[in-house]
Amino acid sequence: MIAIDWGSSSLRAWRLDANGAAVDTRRADLGALGHGAATPALLADALQGWDDTELLLCGMVGARGGWSDAPYLPCPATPGALAQALQEVPTQGTALQGRRARIVPGVRGGSQALPDVMRGEETQIVGLLSQCPDAAQVCLPGTHSKWVSLQAGAIASVHTAMTGESYALYRQHSMLARSMPPTSEPEAFDADAFAAGVRRSGEPGGLLHHLFGVRTLGLFDRLGPAQAPAYLSGLLIGHEVRAQLPLRAPVHLIGGPTLGARYRQAFDLLGIDSHLHGEDLAACGLFHLTR
Amino acid sequence: MIAIDWGSSSLRAWRLDANGAAVDTRRADLGALGHGAATPALLADALQGWDDTELLLCGMVGARGGWSDAPYLPCPATPGALAQALQEVPTQGTALQGRRARIVPGVRGGSQALPDVMRGEETQIVGLLSQCPDAAQVCLPGTHSKWVSLQAGAIASVHTAMTGESYALYRQHSMLARSMPPTSEPEAFDADAFAAGVRRSGEPGGLLHHLFGVRTLGLFDRLGPAQAPAYLSGLLIGHEVRAQLPLRAPVHLIGGPTLGARYRQAFDLLGIDSHLHGEDLAACGLFHLTR
Repeated sequence: MIAIDWGSSSLRAWRLDANGAAVDTRRADLGALGHGAATPALLADALQGWDDTELLLCGMVGARGGWSDAPYLPCPATPGALAQALQEVPTQGTALQGRRARIVPGVRGGSQALPDVMRGEETQIVGLLSQCPDAAQVCLPGTHSKWVSLQAGAIASVHTAMTGESYALYRQHSMLARSMPPTSEPEAFDADAFAAGVRRSGEPGGLLHHLFGVRTLGLFDRLGPAQAPAYLSGLLIGHEVRAQLPLRAPVHLIGGPTLGARYRQAFDLLGIDSHLHGEDLAACGLFHLTR
Repeated sequence: MIAIDWGSSSLRAWRLDANGAAVDTRRADLGALGHGAATPALLADALQGWDDTELLLCGMVGARGGWSDAPYLPCPATPGALAQALQEVPTQGTALQGRRARIVPGVRGGSQALPDVMRGEETQIVGLLSQCPDAAQVCLPGTHSKWVSLQAGAIASVHTAMTGESYALYRQHSMLARSMPPTSEPEAFDADAFAAGVRRSGEPGGLLHHLFGVRTLGLFDRLGPAQAPAYLSGLLIGHEVRAQLPLRAPVHLIGGPTLGARYRQAFDLLGIDSHLHGEDLAACGLFHLTR
């Protein structure tokens, strides 16, 4: 089978053998939204040479504006319920003719009055549960970080924080960017400045006030331009994590190595035990949803 | 005399009689920064036809990159100390020759480790103190909102929140903008949506999480596109004000009518007594600094 995690900015695909082991992997800078009827042809291109008939997809490919809108499954959502709710997309008359394509639905948490959602992360969590059935607290950092509570092997709640996107906004478009090197230059990560930002996030005054400190610390030479991006990152991640306290440790972190290391550092500073898992849990989750 | 409040995006000038009454006013979309040696000529242009010899300026005109860098006065700062610290700028050989130009210094608060600053707002506060000597708590909403505590007629502390700039960033550049009408269209203010945002800001989860609600509320048709900007504004202003609690009421608000009305609504929702003052307090403050 072919496992595909197709998000809003990139596509990752794994060719899996009958035991779920990846025999090949691919990655493309191709977002899942806005292609309309051209979607199957784009996907066939991305999978060229892989002739497996079984395709299972997760992520924004199932969102409004993606290939086919797969309605959200409400919490609590078990891996079994997700497997039951796989949505088949017709491929006849398309570049994918002769193959079966199914999309994993997203999951909806929050309250009726204030819903929260995820698409793609639920599949990584299925992968996590197959390896750590007792996992209770998951953090998936990113543009829109997801915090997920698990209860008795089911996704019990979803909670999103706009941390990564906020970092990019302040880093690139705000007055704070003037205190930092141009984003075109390669950026070294300053772990001490990051830690100072995480510590600052625990003081009174609120995020909107703490952010202005990036400017005044620069103005009075307390923070160099090269340190300012890491300090900003520490402020935002610190606020994100503290808003989740108290947490049920260990927190299972699912993410790439760079962001994973930053969050581990923040957890360490806050005295929270955490385990880092790679993003390949998506392939593992897609495989388990077909069992 | 001529009183001038010259900030980073606009210049406002008042021609005052011997009693401090404005006999004429002007406004120009002319920022104070980055003009270098051309500054006196630009100012002479803006004041054309006003032949008074006495010029008193406040705002970013005294910042690094402005006409002349006027060092910050530390807290606690009294109106008398500000008057003593007026910084004269030589005008000989410039388009302002024969006139005396002085700049009000900014004020620096915060701690040694984490300074905070303002430029221009201190002069509005001098104007406020001349009318309300007992004022204790001041809020000056804007791109960078300033919160100032007064003690015994002196500026005791300065605290900045990046509320207005954050609103503009999320409104124009974030994923949330997709849930809202284009910024090119005229925008009606929805007081109910604003109030919902202010209430939401008091719930657990933190600002980075509350912001994502703008997206999910739109996704599930709980918030229309036309209401979303006011909800976002309420979220941000709610977080700003709550981070200041407990406040010493009445809070003296200094600002234009639009933003002033929003903050008054937020204060009303939080049960805080407030008084709104107009931005002409700058002219009043400049007059008092020459007494």
